[in-house]
Amino acid sequence: MQLWVTEPQTSDVALSFKVVSTLHSEQTPYQRLDVVETERFGKLLLLDGMVQTTERDEFVYHEMITHPALLTHPCPRRVAVIGGGDGGAVREVLKHDTVERVTLVEIDEKVIAAARRFFPSISSGLDNPRTTVLVEDGIRHIRETKGAYDVVLIDSTEPVGAAVGLFSQSFYESLYEALTDDGLIVAQTESPFYNADLIRDTNRALRAVFPLVRLYLAFIPTYPSGMWSFTIASKVHDPLQVDPGRFPDLSTRYFTPAVFRGAFCLPRFVEELTV
Amino acid sequence: MQLWVTEPQTSDVALSFKVVSTLHSEQTPYQRLDVVETERFGKLLLLDGMVQTTERDEFVYHEMITHPALLTHPCPRRVAVIGGGDGGAVREVLKHDTVERVTLVEIDEKVIAAARRFFPSISSGLDNPRTTVLVEDGIRHIRETKGAYDVVLIDSTEPVGAAVGLFSQSFYESLYEALTDDGLIVAQTESPFYNADLIRDTNRALRAVFPLVRLYLAFIPTYPSGMWSFTIASKVHDPLQVDPGRFPDLSTRYFTPAVFRGAFCLPRFVEELTV
Repeated sequence: MQLWVTEPQTSDVALSFKVVSTLHSEQTPYQRLDVVETERFGKLLLLDGMVQTTERDEFVYHEMITHPALLTHPCPRRVAVIGGGDGGAVREVLKHDTVERVTLVEIDEKVIAAARRFFPSISSGLDNPRTTVLVEDGIRHIRETKGAYDVVLIDSTEPVGAAVGLFSQSFYESLYEALTDDGLIVAQTESPFYNADLIRDTNRALRAVFPLVRLYLAFIPTYPSGMWSFTIASKVHDPLQVDPGRFPDLSTRYFTPAVFRGAFCLPRFVEELTV
Repeated sequence: MQLWVTEPQTSDVALSFKVVSTLHSEQTPYQRLDVVETERFGKLLLLDGMVQTTERDEFVYHEMITHPALLTHPCPRRVAVIGGGDGGAVREVLKHDTVERVTLVEIDEKVIAAARRFFPSISSGLDNPRTTVLVEDGIRHIRETKGAYDVVLIDSTEPVGAAVGLFSQSFYESLYEALTDDGLIVAQTESPFYNADLIRDTNRALRAVFPLVRLYLAFIPTYPSGMWSFTIASKVHDPLQVDPGRFPDLSTRYFTPAVFRGAFCLPRFVEELTV
């Protein structure tokens, strides 16, 4: 037989991958978790049927949620990742020598366990001595934290289930308080082709809290439409004023100083979502 | 019933669209041609089962195959489009006031007929007095043309069937001859995620003929992986040396002077295909 896994990316568009074998399925307290091996993208992690990460293209998402923010801050020492239990963002954060501590706050310990078991190349940073793993509600953690982080990465799922609160104005307000005086955050903010309203709303909500808000883009083939957006919200440092010439040489497959510059060059219809 | 149209984008990845109604199907002398109405992307044109254009996202492809090339040339007056029977590239070429004549060379008149009938917003430029439509083999047309075009757009299907020759070194050599002394060409060159070998080969073949070869990218949700590449090959003018500040104000939804700059900022794994 031919086995395919299909993600309905919207109610009327679906992306399918030919499956080599199904490796794991469970219902966690928060979501359905599946791991399948595909021909094209290697192992795939799905949460509630939605592709979260694949071995073959995860480098794009993880490099691009991490490096633009960490290089916009002149000296990030304390970093938090909210969500991101697969560990990919942590792995990228650890490439920055300035970082003394990265705190992963993942609500679902089963995601961490699956990443450790099936995705060692992604979760490799979780056992680093500079990493602290907390299994708890990221919203509560941020609410109870004051002036602690230089950078916070919101590495969330789509805004359904436990992740809804990660896209709320009150969460952005507590993020502002959780940051140091010149801190900044970055959030994954979905596809401009399919989620224009969410991007517009998120941008507006962040601008009500932070003086500097900038959207940027990356190509992610296994995410809906392949065009993915991230939003940086910052107290002081502006990614558009940073000199990529001063960036350290990072070991990456997608990110470069030129990509940093290019990612903020928005197509007209995307730019219109941010004004 | 639910009706879906599915394109196998590779042997192991497929993209599906929910269908409102099927509008047209025929076998032309060159290919299978289908038109369907989808919920998300409006009308869709498929050739041999592969999505060629959709009402909802065609603006990206047509703006991005046209404007970078036409703005790299300081004064394009004679332009040819090889393939592109839907007329979308012609529509964009006509936005440039310097253009005196655009010649569309499409081998399959049924594509032109389907575009006129089902995609009036895309094919609108075909009846412009500055447009000449030739139903003939683009490879022969270019071989028989000398020093005539400032810019040639290779708006081909994937390199199968009639389009194979459009990706060959001998075609690139006749293109060089068909151009004016400071002419340039642009070709659609598939997805870096799925067609790395083709991009590497095309780049090498073009560099054997043209002194300047530059790859750039655009987000096209209905094309495989969503990351699409185009390659400019030029005798004199270098897109990286052009000042986007001098660009005329074009009515576009994707292209802007900033997008022009950003599109040439290649992810590391893509840049490596061009060296």
